[in-house]
Amino acid sequence: MSERRSVDVPIGTPMSRDEFEAAIRAVGAERYHDKHPFHKLLHGGKLDKGQVQAWALNRYCYQDAVPRKDAALISRVHDRELRREWLHRVLDHDGLPPDEPGGIERWLVLTDGLGLDRDYVMSMKGALPATRFAVEAYARFVRERPLIESVASSLTELFAPSIHRARIAGMLENYDFISDDVLAYFKRRLTQAPRDATFALEHVKKNAKSLDEQEACVAAVGFKCDLLWAQLDALQHAYAEEGHIPPGAFVPQVK
Amino acid sequence: MSERRSVDVPIGTPMSRDEFEAAIRAVGAERYHDKHPFHKLLHGGKLDKGQVQAWALNRYCYQDAVPRKDAALISRVHDRELRREWLHRVLDHDGLPPDEPGGIERWLVLTDGLGLDRDYVMSMKGALPATRFAVEAYARFVRERPLIESVASSLTELFAPSIHRARIAGMLENYDFISDDVLAYFKRRLTQAPRDATFALEHVKKNAKSLDEQEACVAAVGFKCDLLWAQLDALQHAYAEEGHIPPGAFVPQVK
Repeated sequence: MSERRSVDVPIGTPMSRDEFEAAIRAVGAERYHDKHPFHKLLHGGKLDKGQVQAWALNRYCYQDAVPRKDAALISRVHDRELRREWLHRVLDHDGLPPDEPGGIERWLVLTDGLGLDRDYVMSMKGALPATRFAVEAYARFVRERPLIESVASSLTELFAPSIHRARIAGMLENYDFISDDVLAYFKRRLTQAPRDATFALEHVKKNAKSLDEQEACVAAVGFKCDLLWAQLDALQHAYAEEGHIPPGAFVPQVK
Repeated sequence: MSERRSVDVPIGTPMSRDEFEAAIRAVGAERYHDKHPFHKLLHGGKLDKGQVQAWALNRYCYQDAVPRKDAALISRVHDRELRREWLHRVLDHDGLPPDEPGGIERWLVLTDGLGLDRDYVMSMKGALPATRFAVEAYARFVRERPLIESVASSLTELFAPSIHRARIAGMLENYDFISDDVLAYFKRRLTQAPRDATFALEHVKKNAKSLDEQEACVAAVGFKCDLLWAQLDALQHAYAEEGHIPPGAFVPQVK
């Protein structure tokens, strides 16, 4: 049996705020979906138009879930300031009549630009079942888990700007069917995501006090990375390489 | 056994839109809380300041629940246009930084004006348990019942402007501790409530198609009237007449 040395910090001592933030960021460094091979194909110009269509219409399901999960979070919050802050996220995605179309509308500009029928995209009938299960798992997590973990699950936005920049540059350079105007969604997210992520990170660092809460928040970021990754696994299995499209899912008609 | 005559309309035929609207309005005519004796006391100048404080701090619990129930409704909606429309309700209550304080803030201006400590009001510690049970029953209804019924439960707003007008006039006239500026909440609701109610009524009339759905919507308006009435029953029992304040609830210190 190996000898043990006494340590300075008793078991169960919470992480310092810096250690906690580093633990959150380490999840992204290891597991955020910028590392997924499907994104390398997408950004590197290795997909044909039909495969990009499949990605965009599946990712629509995620867009569709985002305002619902953010409203679900707001519905649980008694702190008015937190609600007021979180409301920006719903506004960012759904927009506000009459002038702000919102992120979902911008996503539909992308699917329009890819030649997909808007009603078909919005029906989500062609989406992969695995996509729907993953995004609904997210909505359910936010509705059911302790509030601090629900907030923490949004923190993948810390890692989003670099993937959005890579996507804008890579898709513009590599696909003749992608033009600057259909990428408006990602350009807007370059400013929205850091604002939201900064607020949520400070909230989590301030309010997750015990080590258990901190570890649950780190796990929530891992859960979120898992569900983003699972969506790309499903896309890759169905549409990349030889392709195994499940019954009922979108079948590309163009190359 | 009595003879039966054939009727023109087969059993189970949906109401016409006009009949449906009339059935909804009939619930208000019979059961809306403008008919509650406590409101007659409140508006008629028959309460002392401590009793008005009790009303205002209990009613704060309802204000606190409103944006949460509206966010819960949004969290269930896949129709983006309905979400965008409903979002106004959350904005109306929570406001939006930096310029719009929102209805809850305006309610706190009223409780400030009545001399209540803001932290005590917001803690809801002095509220009657019956108040809390009623407002949480509302939040739960909106979260759990079929969506069309959740929308319908908002339709008491059809009946709100007349009670708000009566309240503004009666309280200003009858209480020297009530000034025009602390009633800003009700003045704003005079324009907000009809806008929201008109939209919700049209939505319900259009989307409740079967007789069962229509009847469930009428019942939802009845449920909402019940929970408004129950709050006033609790106030009346605790604070009007001889008063039976339950343990732990607010005890007025002023007459």
